[in-house]
Amino acid sequence: MLSLSAAELLHLKQMIELRRPGYGLPRPLYHDDLLYRAEMDGIWRAGWLFAGHSCQIPNPGDYFLYEVDGDSIIIVRGKEGQVQALYNVCRHRGSLICEATEGHVKRFICPYHQWTYDIDGKLLLWRGMQEGLDKSQLGLHRAHAREVEGMIFVSLAQDPPDFTPAYETIEPVIKPQGLQRAKVARLMDFDVHSNWKLVWENNRECYHCNVNHPQYTKANFDHYNADDTIERVAQQLAMVTARSEAKWTEQGLAVTRTEAGLTEFPDPEHDIWYSANRTPLVDGWVSESLDGKQVAPLMGDYTDPDVGTVRVRMLPNFWNHSSCDHSVAVRLTPNGLYHTQIRMIWLVDEKAEEGKDYDLEKLLPFWLWTAEQDWQICVNQQKGVNSHAYVPGPLSTYKEYNLDRFLRWYLKQMTAAIG
Amino acid sequence: MLSLSAAELLHLKQMIELRRPGYGLPRPLYHDDLLYRAEMDGIWRAGWLFAGHSCQIPNPGDYFLYEVDGDSIIIVRGKEGQVQALYNVCRHRGSLICEATEGHVKRFICPYHQWTYDIDGKLLLWRGMQEGLDKSQLGLHRAHAREVEGMIFVSLAQDPPDFTPAYETIEPVIKPQGLQRAKVARLMDFDVHSNWKLVWENNRECYHCNVNHPQYTKANFDHYNADDTIERVAQQLAMVTARSEAKWTEQGLAVTRTEAGLTEFPDPEHDIWYSANRTPLVDGWVSESLDGKQVAPLMGDYTDPDVGTVRVRMLPNFWNHSSCDHSVAVRLTPNGLYHTQIRMIWLVDEKAEEGKDYDLEKLLPFWLWTAEQDWQICVNQQKGVNSHAYVPGPLSTYKEYNLDRFLRWYLKQMTAAIG
Amino acid sequence: MLSLSAAELLHLKQMIELRRPGYGLPRPLYHDDLLYRAEMDGIWRAGWLFAGHSCQIPNPGDYFLYEVDGDSIIIVRGKEGQVQALYNVCRHRGSLICEATEGHVKRFICPYHQWTYDIDGKLLLWRGMQEGLDKSQLGLHRAHAREVEGMIFVSLAQDPPDFTPAYETIEPVIKPQGLQRAKVARLMDFDVHSNWKLVWENNRECYHCNVNHPQYTKANFDHYNADDTIERVAQQLAMVTARSEAKWTEQGLAVTRTEAGLTEFPDPEHDIWYSANRTPLVDGWVSESLDGKQVAPLMGDYTDPDVGTVRVRMLPNFWNHSSCDHSVAVRLTPNGLYHTQIRMIWLVDEKAEEGKDYDLEKLLPFWLWTAEQDWQICVNQQKGVNSHAYVPGPLSTYKEYNLDRFLRWYLKQMTAAIG
Repeated sequence: MLSLSAAELLHLKQMIELRRPGYGLPRPLYHDDLLYRAEMDGIWRAGWLFAGHSCQIPNPGDYFLYEVDGDSIIIVRGKEGQVQALYNVCRHRGSLICEATEGHVKRFICPYHQWTYDIDGKLLLWRGMQEGLDKSQLGLHRAHAREVEGMIFVSLAQDPPDFTPAYETIEPVIKPQGLQRAKVARLMDFDVHSNWKLVWENNRECYHCNVNHPQYTKANFDHYNADDTIERVAQQLAMVTARSEAKWTEQGLAVTRTEAGLTEFPDPEHDIWYSANRTPLVDGWVSESLDGKQVAPLMGDYTDPDVGTVRVRMLPNFWNHSSCDHSVAVRLTPNGLYHTQIRMIWLVDEKAEEGKDYDLEKLLPFWLWTAEQDWQICVNQQKGVNSHAYVPGPLSTYKEYNLDRFLRWYLKQMTAAIG
Repeated sequence: MLSLSAAELLHLKQMIELRRPGYGLPRPLYHDDLLYRAEMDGIWRAGWLFAGHSCQIPNPGDYFLYEVDGDSIIIVRGKEGQVQALYNVCRHRGSLICEATEGHVKRFICPYHQWTYDIDGKLLLWRGMQEGLDKSQLGLHRAHAREVEGMIFVSLAQDPPDFTPAYETIEPVIKPQGLQRAKVARLMDFDVHSNWKLVWENNRECYHCNVNHPQYTKANFDHYNADDTIERVAQQLAMVTARSEAKWTEQGLAVTRTEAGLTEFPDPEHDIWYSANRTPLVDGWVSESLDGKQVAPLMGDYTDPDVGTVRVRMLPNFWNHSSCDHSVAVRLTPNGLYHTQIRMIWLVDEKAEEGKDYDLEKLLPFWLWTAEQDWQICVNQQKGVNSHAYVPGPLSTYKEYNLDRFLRWYLKQMTAAIG
Repeated sequence: MLSLSAAELLHLKQMIELRRPGYGLPRPLYHDDLLYRAEMDGIWRAGWLFAGHSCQIPNPGDYFLYEVDGDSIIIVRGKEGQVQALYNVCRHRGSLICEATEGHVKRFICPYHQWTYDIDGKLLLWRGMQEGLDKSQLGLHRAHAREVEGMIFVSLAQDPPDFTPAYETIEPVIKPQGLQRAKVARLMDFDVHSNWKLVWENNRECYHCNVNHPQYTKANFDHYNADDTIERVAQQLAMVTARSEAKWTEQGLAVTRTEAGLTEFPDPEHDIWYSANRTPLVDGWVSESLDGKQVAPLMGDYTDPDVGTVRVRMLPNFWNHSSCDHSVAVRLTPNGLYHTQIRMIWLVDEKAEEGKDYDLEKLLPFWLWTAEQDWQICVNQQKGVNSHAYVPGPLSTYKEYNLDRFLRWYLKQMTAAIG
């Protein structure tokens, strides 16, 4: 953890006690350098982070890099086929070992003095070093890594929280999607000029969807809330739910969200930082595409396109939306107080061929446009909360209950971190 | 105000006591981050700032934005035709409301969740919010706004200084210029790599004019000083003054500056941060243009081009030079310790047509070149005061008396702010 | 020196005591802003810095600028032909006086208000200033300057360390090279995204040479170390040394390094921050060029190309490699924690003509490529030591003894500086 003076600790404690229940976060929480450093320690180097997909590294020695707050992590498939997270830092003088952001190696050879490690991080060779040093103590540092059906999560914590409940929640829901038998159709990186918390706040409510997301709202029910779900919509939802439940039971798929409005998430009181559910799409839509039609071959175990949509979320850096034919992951990484690096990864079935089985012009727009609409909102809100005149307003209990949950989760984490 | 620790306060106090009377500012006053923050609070969010011209927003709902130290201010003409300053920050989650830097609105609608305000800032609509909240408390935050004959000033202070003396000083001098019946001929923005105080120091002396401003010195008398006003120049000045006084009395214009050298300004001992005067131009010049000839139709109440030049100044961010046919405003805005955003606005009579009644190639160069000469000087001085070897030198009592007044005004403001 | 609070001093002291003997520097020493400021004061404004070559300013009034940590220094040849270092800061308001990075002046005239100094820095003219000020006290501030056979060193310290031992060590070794009768063939500036200490660490070992420097290792012996100098190499070295000693004795050149491995440097225990030696090249090589052949006319006193190579080093910012026909200087200047400005200067004999006597395509690559290989390594290491997982590893006693010496020298300097 950070080593902080008593005055610094007091400063942080006072800051995270500023929030008025039911309102947004006060201005200092978006502007304080020390708080940012405490977030990096207390949240980002404490919890589990989505790094990428297992299908990006199919064979032993395949790797990609993930950089978080100055730490370059090598996500590499090991000798036994296991997924591992190794720090990309030579144990000799600290040089980066892998310079390319992805690739395949037989062994890791530091370009500086050629200290050589096997793909599991064990130090094999160090020409020119004297006797009396213990090579076995100088393997590459490891971070924790877990896989859930082809999604790779890492933790930079010494003692990360138990991953089992997250695994058990997510695995049965996502399993039929077959992410381990997928391939990357497109990967995009965005530098969004916004604090990472604003990106989550935006994600945790659909109050903004009606006007801002014309594509998204055509396909989904969750922008309707208890207070504005008109009779016609309620009937539609009941109808598709009933139909889906019947069909999905046949296919072994459980409908886990059958109401309008966003699934409640997170649950700070019960330490729930992970979530997954399957929910129907609007009648006539089988994919989150511009026209609702299928845009790629069926993925995984699906035999029928009418599988609704699967959503997975994990704090602090991940959400995923999957249709019958494609899956879109979003990975957040803070890059200073005012920037968030965002990676989006579109997956399709591993056997699908671009140009033949799918076209990017049809595959990408639904989530790309929706995402870019959100990034613009976040940039705009960042500018607003920069103002000395910004004071948090009241949150809608109908439409922003998940945002409130996120803020409570955040403050609980920070309270625990600062101790 | 800033909340500062005792050690920080002491640090600031010691810094502003460093100046030796009659000399420039010591190095730390151009380099200290904490001092910069104190300046933002104690000067920039305390006094009155020029924002722009009334003619930029002729009709109710017309607006432009002015951004100061992270605060985006909407300068908008209200329902009753009044000029207002509203913070561009939604009272819900803090998003910017207006993204375009100027425009016309019927109502302000936040793009995030469509909270809707009237053009006077009153909250009208907030779909989706629960009962029990008081909408009347959630109008847009307001800053203070005042108009002087078409020039708009705002204050971000809670209790700004009395504007009346400034109004009464400036209004009679500028009134015949008719800035309310003007239009923008050109607007330019500059990012000058220099501390804002250096820009003012440059403005407050004409010691540098002879060599650096070949255009300016042809038209004006004020680069001469008591110590170097030769007999020939003194006679010229007496002659044009006598002639002008006669003519201007007929037109109801008062000559308020008839000596060589810069008008004394500011006056820290009497808290004078505003000033205006009319002064003759060199014989044969009727406009601050490259050849002294008129470059646009007469403005305002003028019936004869021989009206000399009107100057208006207001600390901390404004000066204006007006000839019979055009008016040039300069607006300063600090952007960090080492940058000053500068906007220049050229006005001409509202009925003048570009290409027919005036050409920008003739209208702009006099002040554009003079300004750019000054910006270059400021950049150069910034580099010099960065040096550890910089120590302030003596100021010329003949030529830098106003610079000395500015420094005393600055230190007095800061002393008051730090308390 | 820096004025530091007791807490800041303690913070620095604890940091520089973190190093484990025989290992690299701990992470905080590459990341701490306060430590960087202390380095600027305790090393960079304390010792002697290479600025450039005497042949860059052959005549009185010729000058070039050298900028270190915000201080622009004018290196100018004075009225008596002496080399001087003057601060490029007007004593009036602090403006830069010379804007061009090199040139010739008759007098220094400040562009702001035309205060005028002679080329020795004496204030001559200041029109417009009042009586009663002492002009003699307002000459340009001076830094210390010394010349060693055409190499110019400056010190920004008030009381710099005695330069005599450095002079006496370097002068006899470099004298035959004739750097005073040379000219600049090429000058290049690099912005290397790396802490300055990493650049020195890289310079102080050749452990990395075998794989990273294919050009360098062909020409030199010093990448071999006690532990890997095979019999064949030892014989070659003995042979060229014996032959060289015989020939060089005739020419009056001393062989001062005749063993494999890097010359021991620096020597922190004896405060040795300067070094120079002549050493043989590999048999068949007379110049550090790609093929070992001469690439320009003989320099200085040389009558035979077989003069080996002369190396000069001086902490904290300089090294030089000279062959019979050219000389390459490297000058380091920190530019913040994570950037080092590096200038390389190639010299050839003053009478040599480009295109006739030498071609840049043959002259430059050997050291340009070797340097760029090193800059890339440094950038890569910077990224690695940014990681929270970086911990310093053991240094090779065979191959990194000079790196260890550098680190001990650095810590000794900082300990003295912090007191």
